[in-house]
Amino acid sequence: MNIRLISTGGTILSQMGGRGLAPTGDAGDAADEMRSRFPSHSFSLDTVMSLDSSNIQPEHWQEIADAVYRSYEGSDGFIILHGTDTMAYTSSALSFMLRNLGKAVTLTGSQIPLEDPRSDGWLNLAVAVAAVEGGINGVTVSFCNKIISGVRAVKASADGIDAFISAGAPPLATVTAFGLRAEGGWRPPFDPDSPLSFERGVCPDVFLIKMTPGLKPEIFDALLGIGYKGIVVEAFGAGGMHSEGRDAAAGVARAASSGVPVVVRSQCLYGATDLSVYEVGRRLLDAGAIPAGGMTAEATVAKLMWALAKTADVGEIERMFQTNYAGEML
Amino acid sequence: MNIRLISTGGTILSQMGGRGLAPTGDAGDAADEMRSRFPSHSFSLDTVMSLDSSNIQPEHWQEIADAVYRSYEGSDGFIILHGTDTMAYTSSALSFMLRNLGKAVTLTGSQIPLEDPRSDGWLNLAVAVAAVEGGINGVTVSFCNKIISGVRAVKASADGIDAFISAGAPPLATVTAFGLRAEGGWRPPFDPDSPLSFERGVCPDVFLIKMTPGLKPEIFDALLGIGYKGIVVEAFGAGGMHSEGRDAAAGVARAASSGVPVVVRSQCLYGATDLSVYEVGRRLLDAGAIPAGGMTAEATVAKLMWALAKTADVGEIERMFQTNYAGEML
Repeated sequence: MNIRLISTGGTILSQMGGRGLAPTGDAGDAADEMRSRFPSHSFSLDTVMSLDSSNIQPEHWQEIADAVYRSYEGSDGFIILHGTDTMAYTSSALSFMLRNLGKAVTLTGSQIPLEDPRSDGWLNLAVAVAAVEGGINGVTVSFCNKIISGVRAVKASADGIDAFISAGAPPLATVTAFGLRAEGGWRPPFDPDSPLSFERGVCPDVFLIKMTPGLKPEIFDALLGIGYKGIVVEAFGAGGMHSEGRDAAAGVARAASSGVPVVVRSQCLYGATDLSVYEVGRRLLDAGAIPAGGMTAEATVAKLMWALAKTADVGEIERMFQTNYAGEML
Repeated sequence: MNIRLISTGGTILSQMGGRGLAPTGDAGDAADEMRSRFPSHSFSLDTVMSLDSSNIQPEHWQEIADAVYRSYEGSDGFIILHGTDTMAYTSSALSFMLRNLGKAVTLTGSQIPLEDPRSDGWLNLAVAVAAVEGGINGVTVSFCNKIISGVRAVKASADGIDAFISAGAPPLATVTAFGLRAEGGWRPPFDPDSPLSFERGVCPDVFLIKMTPGLKPEIFDALLGIGYKGIVVEAFGAGGMHSEGRDAAAGVARAASSGVPVVVRSQCLYGATDLSVYEVGRRLLDAGAIPAGGMTAEATVAKLMWALAKTADVGEIERMFQTNYAGEML
């Protein structure tokens, strides 16, 4: 198979310098090693950037999507080398930007650099190869023997080797001693008679508020004042916010009535948002909040950025949040 | 034993109304049932508020701490009925406000109201009684057979019955078929020759920024503009923030140089923050960020609110964040 390696940097390609670990630009040695380890495949390399993924932002998502798009026809699958820190944000964004994918587009990286003999990187690259070989179509994260939907991946551990979870659904597949095992989970539809859907537009002006006790409702106005066009709120539990003394729901209502969509999800890692169960949640629905259901934080932020590039109409965005594009809705 | 029930509301005491579940004021029936279930103990009841815990804010933490303090001498232990949504914030705050506790002060609640025959509330109350009987001193959360340090509890599931995890350390104890089993974990020191330490001051003006790709550095200035006096940043991975194009670290530096402490933790649920490993983290240390180590988000926010009530001096606050008060540091 012709496998396209797209290199963006990350720990996997990092080296220790005087100021700590930082990415090098060079994925050439890694590509050579892959050719040696998997002689039945051919690997071509596209180095699109060389960044610690803390620095990968919406504009970079577009460059990565472009790199997939421009070599889509000639490749049988894509392995994107990426830092772990924001990998789940990038995988979420690519899941919306690139749809009707008939091939695997899988992100991988490592917690320990390849140059270190203890590195988890070679095994993660092998998982990514398995995703390509197995035809796990769509955008995924390949990490620590799991192939996770791009919109369900969450980096749950800052230092653990098994750093990613598949939130709210099993991983799509796991690598076992006897090969790839399908685990269920939502697979994106692929219609071979339709072209690749490539919508690279993204509006970076989305802020995420993680609610804390005592949050000032004025924050909503302050965000509008510095140019934010969309807000994601991680509310308490199933979707609560305070109203006693400080009326956070009133802040939501002011933003929504100014034409700024406010999408609400739970700040809990597991379990879906449901604004209809508790009185505190119903106040948010009244205020115009859009419930995020079972979407991860990363998918919610990426979807709102992607939606805002298509339309500024809050009603239209609400309809988009009732539509499952990439398996983001449970 | 004389057990003091302090009632604040929450799902455990909620009833279904026309606008969804909302707390009732009445814990009297629950207290009667506890007297019937545990006849060897006596239960007194103090109803201090009746709120969905999405509404429990720093001022309410003070009222709850007051309720413990005023009945401390006459009670052998405390069970605080509280909603699950912000229970981990309240347990964190009480852990700093009330120290040198020689008795159990344990929070509990439920995911399903007591009035429902499927309620997990009675079992959770039994776990709380076990914490009191077992002399698990200090502030804890008793939930789903686990007794968790107040500064390690995190509500990880919006809807699961096993809603709380002990992040970064095992729970202090679990309830088994054969009684309470100690699991390790940090127990707060108790010096019987020293009095209860009661420091109820708390500054509510702390904002938590959960980093997302593309975050505008102007947010730091906007927060200062609406009166925030402390900022917690949940950075990427071990503690990264972007600097390419949008220089978030410069925003940190501006806040810090204005005398507003900026404490940085990882947005990952597991694993400690370490700003020294990656170049992107070292930029934050240079900017004046205070690392939160292995503290939970809830404990970090509560500790900064508590610290700001004691001092506005950033150097002093940094020293407080190098000091373990309640097991919050790993």
